[in-house]
Amino acid sequence: MLPPPDVEIMTIGDELLYGQVVDTNSAWMGQELGRIGLRVRQISSVSDRADEIVAALDLARTRAQVVLITGGLGPTKDDLTKHVLARYFGTELALHEPSLRDVEQIFARFNRPMLEVNRQQAFLPKTCTALRNPVGTAPGMWFEDQGTVFVSMPGVPFEMKRIMTDSVLPRLQQHFHVPPIEHAVLQTVGQGESFLAAQIADWEDQLPPNMKLAYLPYLGGVRLRLTATDDGQPNLRQRLAAQLPPLRAIIGPYLYAEGEVSLAAAIGRLLQERNLTIGTAESCTGGYIAHKITEVAGSSAYFLGSVVAYHNDVKVRQLGVQPDTLTQHGAVSEETVRQMAEGLRTQLGVDVAVATSGIAGPGGGSEAKPVGTFWIAYADAHQTVARIISFDRGRQLNIEYVTTQALNLVRQNLPALG
Amino acid sequence: MLPPPDVEIMTIGDELLYGQVVDTNSAWMGQELGRIGLRVRQISSVSDRADEIVAALDLARTRAQVVLITGGLGPTKDDLTKHVLARYFGTELALHEPSLRDVEQIFARFNRPMLEVNRQQAFLPKTCTALRNPVGTAPGMWFEDQGTVFVSMPGVPFEMKRIMTDSVLPRLQQHFHVPPIEHAVLQTVGQGESFLAAQIADWEDQLPPNMKLAYLPYLGGVRLRLTATDDGQPNLRQRLAAQLPPLRAIIGPYLYAEGEVSLAAAIGRLLQERNLTIGTAESCTGGYIAHKITEVAGSSAYFLGSVVAYHNDVKVRQLGVQPDTLTQHGAVSEETVRQMAEGLRTQLGVDVAVATSGIAGPGGGSEAKPVGTFWIAYADAHQTVARIISFDRGRQLNIEYVTTQALNLVRQNLPALG
Repeated sequence: MLPPPDVEIMTIGDELLYGQVVDTNSAWMGQELGRIGLRVRQISSVSDRADEIVAALDLARTRAQVVLITGGLGPTKDDLTKHVLARYFGTELALHEPSLRDVEQIFARFNRPMLEVNRQQAFLPKTCTALRNPVGTAPGMWFEDQGTVFVSMPGVPFEMKRIMTDSVLPRLQQHFHVPPIEHAVLQTVGQGESFLAAQIADWEDQLPPNMKLAYLPYLGGVRLRLTATDDGQPNLRQRLAAQLPPLRAIIGPYLYAEGEVSLAAAIGRLLQERNLTIGTAESCTGGYIAHKITEVAGSSAYFLGSVVAYHNDVKVRQLGVQPDTLTQHGAVSEETVRQMAEGLRTQLGVDVAVATSGIAGPGGGSEAKPVGTFWIAYADAHQTVARIISFDRGRQLNIEYVTTQALNLVRQNLPALG
Repeated sequence: MLPPPDVEIMTIGDELLYGQVVDTNSAWMGQELGRIGLRVRQISSVSDRADEIVAALDLARTRAQVVLITGGLGPTKDDLTKHVLARYFGTELALHEPSLRDVEQIFARFNRPMLEVNRQQAFLPKTCTALRNPVGTAPGMWFEDQGTVFVSMPGVPFEMKRIMTDSVLPRLQQHFHVPPIEHAVLQTVGQGESFLAAQIADWEDQLPPNMKLAYLPYLGGVRLRLTATDDGQPNLRQRLAAQLPPLRAIIGPYLYAEGEVSLAAAIGRLLQERNLTIGTAESCTGGYIAHKITEVAGSSAYFLGSVVAYHNDVKVRQLGVQPDTLTQHGAVSEETVRQMAEGLRTQLGVDVAVATSGIAGPGGGSEAKPVGTFWIAYADAHQTVARIISFDRGRQLNIEYVTTQALNLVRQNLPALG
């Protein structure tokens, strides 16, 4: 078997360079390749121009032994990857009957007429191995050329993912000998990168040379990833695991989960363990906390529902906030947000409620309560806890940050329950 | 002045290659550069290894006259861009007093103790021009080296954006002569790329050589972007605009807006023009429709609130769904979703309501109602309209798709109102 290859991901499309589309494919591919121990050496995004695609292919093969290409396989005129690849490998397109049958079946299933442009998608370079695409009309293509593997896939994320999982990853594992690599991910919330790094510095200094800690900040916290690469010694996974207990002790109050778990999913586990239900009463976050909770598969086991109370009448009628409270203290106040959380508990009959009220901006601020002023509250059968947050990085980030803080308030208070 | 440069965006960080972080910076930068008429030639994401950064810098300067670098400027140990750049340009780091004062002020503002690692961030390569970062601790750096401009910025999106807007874009416009470029964006919803392409083909064929149509599909629709590049003739914008009327006629039923406008924002405009209010009653979408509506600044002018009714008791008590209906037809049924929409109108006193109920998966399906079965309803004072949707590409995409369809149902029915 061949030694482990470096991989280059090449994404093709003017829409990436113009910034009309965010490339989420590369991150997913990087994760999946990392899981089987393959290193991504570079990600290159290039235009739809044939000469620039060819220049990028020439460079990629000097850096990597596997080049994974996405994009430029759609049915429309600005997609030309297939033609460029055929020319690059000195071959021509020919009808690939099994791919045509796949395309026909897709149109039959959705009961739509098949167009000539879709039929054209079953024409493939003669020297490639076709990789089935059971969820779309553009098959993947696997080329081997002078020791380098080139794979071309459509840019539509769920089609690319299916071809990667079904075909590309298994084929790469057959083709190459892959050395061990181990990762541990520790998810923290509520502290910034600098603070954590200062706390962790001594521990980090004593790590062996084949282990490396990466700080992956997100809005409201930091994900820590410890990676151990092959050093020729056995038990890599155990040696990685042995480094973790002191780290856990240092970051304890901020550590909400290990592995690829969202904060909402971690809270879901806590709720299920305690047999508790939750609901949200949201003003400024506008349903985003409910969305984060219900994004988690199986959340119907503990999430009952929410009231999004943007207008004050909704706060009064659906959540039982006192009109006097709104008049005296305003909608963005400790008193209101406490009543929202407590009112939701009563109205929906949930064990735990979390509530938000604030000024997400850009309008709506005042001298006393500028944009970026937020109140959040947590309520259960025994206590109601409220917190003020000052944070302004624009409406969308404000909503996201307050949502994370509200979920963290639940995480911090749940353990006292039951 | 110098002729218009090609730009290369270089993002640095193992976290991008491992796929732990999605690169949203490049898309934003591409959009802003496109707006001032600069073309992004390539986006390259490389590792934290010094030799690979240097190799990428060497290549970038052969392709582009401006290299914009993000990442690797944080305070922690895995960030080393600054040191590599100092060596690459044959200089060394020195304390930059104005940057130190900026860093000190940031810590004073947040009332946090400043750490030594943060002080280190004010050490910059001697030959660079420091670009102020008013929202973070890592300044930007502008280098000019043998005719190529290199700019290094932190990878934290809101810091990078601030430095780009305040410093980099104005400096590039001063430095280079930029030819005209014009874009028109037409936003469609409710049809796929192949179908639209077939409808548009004849119109596309008659476009002059300096104009190009790009199809930018998203889940539930396609954004069309027509770009006109400089052909030496005057009135580029007018000539671009003159191409649009026949295109509008072809895609009329699917065209929801022109320019960078979300579907939710377009509906917001329709509601405001008609002086109408809206609310949502959501089961399977779990608050995501409310979130999309409230993501729009100023949405409090027409959005009153929502009930997220995951549990049947919430559907009955908060929305007035008849228990008999749930027993006879189930929660995922035309009858239930109609009552949810109508009930929300009554309960919240909104003019327009939209409701969803379905099986987002992966669990919860049955033979009669498999995962991917969704009902959506629209209700106003005059009518209630319901639609069934069959769609299954996994929980998260299902939620997103149904949300788009529900908003489109509002768009299609609103014009009949008032």
